[in-house]
Parts: sequence; C-alpha cells; structure tokens
Amino acid sequence: MKIHILTLSLCLEFLFLSSYAQNLKVNADRLHESLMTLSTFGKNEKGGTDRVAYSDHDLRARDYVMNLMRDAGMEVSVDYAGNIIGRRIGKNTSMKPISFGSHIDEVPNGGDYDGPVGSMSAIEVVKTLAENRLYTDHPLEVIIFANEEGGVIGSRALVGSLSSSALDVVSNAGISHAEGIRKLGGNPDRIPEVKRKPGDIAAFLELHIEQGGNLDREKINIGVVEGIVAIEWWEFTFKGKANHAGTTPMNMRKDPMLPAAKFVLAVNEIVNSYEGRQVGTVGKIQAFPGAGNVIPGEVKVNVELRDLSSEKIWQIYADLEKKAKELAFASQTELDINHIEVASHPAMADEKIREIIQAQAKNLGLSTLSLPSGAGHDAQEMARLAPMGMIFIPSKDGISHAPEEFSSKQDIANGANVLLGTILQIDRLFK
Amino acid sequence: MKIHILTLSLCLEFLFLSSYAQNLKVNADRLHESLMTLSTFGKNEKGGTDRVAYSDHDLRARDYVMNLMRDAGMEVSVDYAGNIIGRRIGKNTSMKPISFGSHIDEVPNGGDYDGPVGSMSAIEVVKTLAENRLYTDHPLEVIIFANEEGGVIGSRALVGSLSSSALDVVSNAGISHAEGIRKLGGNPDRIPEVKRKPGDIAAFLELHIEQGGNLDREKINIGVVEGIVAIEWWEFTFKGKANHAGTTPMNMRKDPMLPAAKFVLAVNEIVNSYEGRQVGTVGKIQAFPGAGNVIPGEVKVNVELRDLSSEKIWQIYADLEKKAKELAFASQTELDINHIEVASHPAMADEKIREIIQAQAKNLGLSTLSLPSGAGHDAQEMARLAPMGMIFIPSKDGISHAPEEFSSKQDIANGANVLLGTILQIDRLFK
Repeated sequence: MKIHILTLSLCLEFLFLSSYAQNLKVNADRLHESLMTLSTFGKNEKGGTDRVAYSDHDLRARDYVMNLMRDAGMEVSVDYAGNIIGRRIGKNTSMKPISFGSHIDEVPNGGDYDGPVGSMSAIEVVKTLAENRLYTDHPLEVIIFANEEGGVIGSRALVGSLSSSALDVVSNAGISHAEGIRKLGGNPDRIPEVKRKPGDIAAFLELHIEQGGNLDREKINIGVVEGIVAIEWWEFTFKGKANHAGTTPMNMRKDPMLPAAKFVLAVNEIVNSYEGRQVGTVGKIQAFPGAGNVIPGEVKVNVELRDLSSEKIWQIYADLEKKAKELAFASQTELDINHIEVASHPAMADEKIREIIQAQAKNLGLSTLSLPSGAGHDAQEMARLAPMGMIFIPSKDGISHAPEEFSSKQDIANGANVLLGTILQIDRLFK
Repeated sequence: MKIHILTLSLCLEFLFLSSYAQNLKVNADRLHESLMTLSTFGKNEKGGTDRVAYSDHDLRARDYVMNLMRDAGMEVSVDYAGNIIGRRIGKNTSMKPISFGSHIDEVPNGGDYDGPVGSMSAIEVVKTLAENRLYTDHPLEVIIFANEEGGVIGSRALVGSLSSSALDVVSNAGISHAEGIRKLGGNPDRIPEVKRKPGDIAAFLELHIEQGGNLDREKINIGVVEGIVAIEWWEFTFKGKANHAGTTPMNMRKDPMLPAAKFVLAVNEIVNSYEGRQVGTVGKIQAFPGAGNVIPGEVKVNVELRDLSSEKIWQIYADLEKKAKELAFASQTELDINHIEVASHPAMADEKIREIIQAQAKNLGLSTLSLPSGAGHDAQEMARLAPMGMIFIPSKDGISHAPEEFSSKQDIANGANVLLGTILQIDRLFK
C-alpha cells in the first residue's frame, strides 16, 4: 500500500511538473534588457563591439554577468582557465550537473548576439526557476566560457585539450592567452586541474544564433543541431623561383603563382564533386615576397574543409593532395603541405537530447529544422564529456561576426524557452 | 695657308687624342677598392646590405662618395632633391655637361653592385681623366641620384615629374620622402627648382649591372641597352560576398577567389599569346579579410606588364580587361580595375650613343649584346632631358636586389672603360 501511495504521489508530482513546466516561460523583456546592457560593453563608434577576450571591455562585461548570476541565486566562481561558473544546487545531491552556457567575448568589431544570446538565456533560465522556486533534481551549472572566439580556450581547458604551448600564443587582445587568463582571474599554471572526466556532467546544452541563413531564409523558429562539423586546415605551398619581373623572360620563369591558381580552382571542383553538405574554402592566398615587380618564390594557399564526417574530409583531402602534386610536377615547382592544428573534430549531438529539443519546440508551437552547425562552438568540446545538444535561433541574413548581427527579441525568447523546457525534461529523463 | 695649318693641327690633335683615349684605362684596382669600401656601409650579419635611402648607412656612404668626388677634383654639391652632383669644368664653357652616374642606395637586405658599380665607375672615370690631366670640351657631371630604389626620386625631381604628394609617401627608411630628402641635405619645398629642361644636358650615360642573366649566361662582356621598358601596373579587384566558410553552402557562395584564380591564369596565357619580349607578372594576390575560415569578400590581383612599346602594353591590357570582365560577369562578382601610377614610360636609348658604346667595346676587344632593360633606372627619367645611353655588365646568374649580387672585378673594369671611352667619344662628336 505504501508503495502505491508513493507511486501515486510521484505520478501527481510528474503531472503537475509537466503542466507547470509547459507553462513556465522566461521573462522575454528582462532577457532582452540584459542582452542590450551586455552589448554596451565595448561598443565602438561604428556600432560594432570590440569585446575581445581579456580586454578591459571583456573584464567589465564579466563583472556584469557575474552579478546577474548572483542575482539569479547562483554561487559564482572563476576557474583556473578563466571560465565563469555559476552553480545552483539540485534536490538530488548525488547527481551530476546539467551544464549549459555560451560565451560573451566577441571577434574584433563583432556583434551582440553570437555568444551573448546563449549566455544571457542561460542566466535567465536559472532566474526564472529561482523566481518560481522550482528546483531541479540535478544541480545546474551555467558556464560562460573564456575566450571562445580566440580558439575555444575555456572549453578546451575543461576537456583537457588545451596544450601549454597554446597558452603562449598571442591573442586578439595583444597579450598571450596565459597573461589573458590571469587577467580573468584564472591561473594558467593550474589549468590541468580544471579538466573534467566524461560523466562529470549529466548533459551539456548551448543556445546560439545560427551562423548561416537557413532558419532566417526559411522563416523557421528553432534549429535542432545534428552535430558540429569537423574542420581541417591545410596550407599548400608551391615553391618556384623568385625573380625580377622585368628581366626574366616568360619562358625562363618558374612561377608558383600558376599551379597555385590552378589548385584554387581544383579545390572548388573537387569539393563540389562529392554528394552532401561538405564545404571547402580557400580564404587566404599569399605570394612571397608579394611585390608587384617580383615573380613570387612561393605561393601559399590555405584550404579549409568542413563536414560532419571526418572520413569524408580526409577522402577529399586525398584528392586535393593528388591534384596538388600533379600541378607541382607539371610546373616544376616544389610542394609543401602543412596540416594546421585547429583542434576541431566533429561532435554529434546526442539523439535523445535532439528529440527533447524537438518536442519542447513543438510544445511551444515553434517550427523546427534539423541542421548541422558549420561553425565551431564550445559545445563541440563539451561533447567529449557529456551528451550534448545545441539549439539555434535565426540570425538575420545569417550574418555573424559582424556589427550587423541581429536576432529578434521574440526569436531569442523562443530559444530561451526551448532551452528551459529542454533542461527540465533532461532533468526528468536523465537519471 | 693659315687654314691648312689649323686643319693639320686639329687632325693631329684628333689623332693624338684618339690613340691616347684608346689607351686610356681606368685603374681597375682602385675602382674595385672603392666599391668594396662602399659595400661596408650598412653590411648586415647575413652578408646583405641594409643601405636604404635616407638611412644613417646611406648618409655615411654619401659622405664617403662625396670625398671620393672631391679627391677626383670635382666640385661637389647636394641639390634640393638630395642628389649628389660632382662637377668638372670643360674646355668649352658654352657647352652643356655630359652627365653620368647611378645610385648608391639599396633595397632592404640588398647587394653591393646594383647602383654602386655605375656610381663608383663614374667617379673613377673622372679620377682617371684628372690623373692624366685630360680635359674634355664639355663639362662633366657625375650624378649620384637620391633614392633610386624607392621610386627614382632624385631623377624624377630633375625631370620635374616628382609630385608633391609623392613626397608624403613613407619610404623604406620609415620616414616620408620629404623628411628623408631633408636628411640628405635637400629641401623638399624647393624641389621644383632643380628641374632641368631638355637640352640642359648634352648626353646622359649610366653603367649598371644587368638585372637578368643574358650576359652572364652567354658569356658576353658588355650589354648595349636598346631602351628601358615601359612598366604599367593594375590592380584588378574581384568583389563577391564575404561569408562564414562553415555555414555558407557551396551553391550559395559568391566567392571572388574563383574568378581571381582564373584571371591569374589568363594573364599568363594572354601575355604569352603575343610575339616578342613583353613580360607580364602577377606578383601579388590578396584575399580580404584573408582568414582561412572566411569566404573572401574581395580578392585583389596585381598585374604588371613591361615592354619597350607602350602601345603593345595597352593592347595586352585591353585583352586582360575584356577577360576580367567576362570572368566577373560569369561569376556574378563585381570588378574594379585600378591603374597604379608607377611613372615608368619607355625610354629608348639614343641610337648614336648605342653605336659609340658598341664601337668602344669593340676597341677594347669586348663582346657585346644589344638588349632591352627590363628593369627601371634613373636613365629612364634622364632620357627625357638628353640623348641617353646605358651600358650593362654581367651579373652572376642575373641576380639583383639580393645579397648574392656579384660582378667580377674585370667585368666592372670593362664597363668603366667603355663608359670612359664613350664619354670621350661623345665629347668629340656631340658639338
């Protein structure tokens, strides 16, 4: 009999919570206001935002964010890598936290939505729960990652993939990551201690603007991210012989510009020859010495490939390598290929979480589209530690990393409500 | 009878001078020693020479050169443009000077021969005449031009083609040309006063290393320059739409890298489709913003064309323009073409002077080759003022603008002797 009563009580609580959670919404005005306040930190004359990680603007914005977290009842700390961690206890002390968050640093002359939308929404979700005196079973953890735009520094520290040599690299703020992390209140010497193990987190969620125009173009409210693509970079260097552009007859030149130009075209052809959504880009090409009156000695062509499948990326690369070698041979130039470490393996979203996001959006009457994320995110790193899910909202014309970034107040609130619902559902289902 | 005696006397003087001049030779050792001393000013650890115009090394080298000039009996001054002028009187005060010289400034990390060979030989020629107490009818004028490598600044001032806006440009020394000229003892405000008129100079000669491998490869002693090619520069900018390299599907891109690469190949094909010795070079290509993870918004392709005929250059350009427009149209990119002012019109050598150079070389038992100069020189500017001639000597492997520049002591002496003989012959024939 006792058991039956307990079961009944659980059922009632479940039903109550379900309907309650379905009605629970974030405060769209408050969320938008905090986002607009955040956007003032580092706003430049041209309307762009100069809030690169480690800058004074970043520091002041972080203070603002930490105060918002405290106001939402969270216990706030900064870890050794400079990540801001806001914790809220759960009813079940043996459970691992559900973690969610994003970043507030921006590219130079960036916008106000890439990162801030997910960061402010995460805090608003906790504030909403606090206002409603609603406690989840799992502890909740809001993470505002340190320096996402400069190489997902904070999330790499959390998964233990941030090498000590990476700390010496000079960041966009003009100081090394080590110095920058110190400015944030971290301690670069103790970064290995922040590393977490798979299982330390129950689930990780990130809400973000879609850096691409699919949702905006198709007027869809919510993107359910299938996964985050792998990114690989190579630098193909064709080496000929630098010479005087006036005194070296055409037939005596060993000009690496010619195979390099043919290779640029081949990259496009080869990437397009595959079925699917892979992309390949030559975003950078440089001739050395790079003077109008000198036949170049070297031309460097930077190739980036992205796809959800690493295997496909390396298949395409094999084609590129073959073609580059043929071009170098035919032009009597030498070829160097340098694989550049960008630490961007593919990360699939957890299928269960995708279903939950989908269902939450449906409950809220929002349209959805499943799509890969062509851009990298902290969630890509965090997927190594826990089941990961990402929610996208539309970004006008797909613009990001620019002052013109824009998402509507309603779209942002939609995203935050889906995040809230997803957290509550995960809290129920991930035991 | 009186007339006959005068005629006889003139004939005897002519014969005496002819045979004397045929035997007159520069002091090869002294010439080489002065060249080697000059090379010490600005020598860097790697064996290159950092004697860019206006640098302290340039200033000290100029002091050395002015002392050499005084030692050769010249009256030395620095004009408002910073050119060093060494004058030696002639027997006929109504005659205009025969001018000759070169430059002693170098490109960054340059060599010891491009400029110095002609400069030191010019002084050695006067020193040789002085030692032999031989006076020409024409006054002689040795000009060491200010900042040849940074845009033939000194010679442009002499012909009146140096605009005041050009003076604001920052030079390789990191200061503006105006500041630099002041350092040299010139006065940028009074540069218009140094302008000379056509006819102010009887003839202009420059001895120089061949910046190209023709003489060295074919083991020829002396190059008789036919003329200095015209140089034209254009910047072709293909404008597409910068976008995220991860989130923009291949079929939604407007990537200017593709027409730019096709255009690079077209430049080569079109230049080669013409008969003759024209050259065309893409020495510089730049993508903007130029990041591996951004589809470029713009790609700039720098095209240089050179030929003795300006007409042919502009014919080729018309083909390039047509092709670029086709490529832009086909790729839905925009095209901007910017003609860059490099002030390098063609300059034909005076035919009479070419014959004299040829004859002088033959008298000295030296082999010759007639060839165009694919590189620009101060002589190109000076050709606007007077009949111009240039003498080339071999440069090992055709290397110039690099620490590896090398011409043998014998080749340098050969060049100086041809210069000496040519001056004496011009003195006789140009009345």
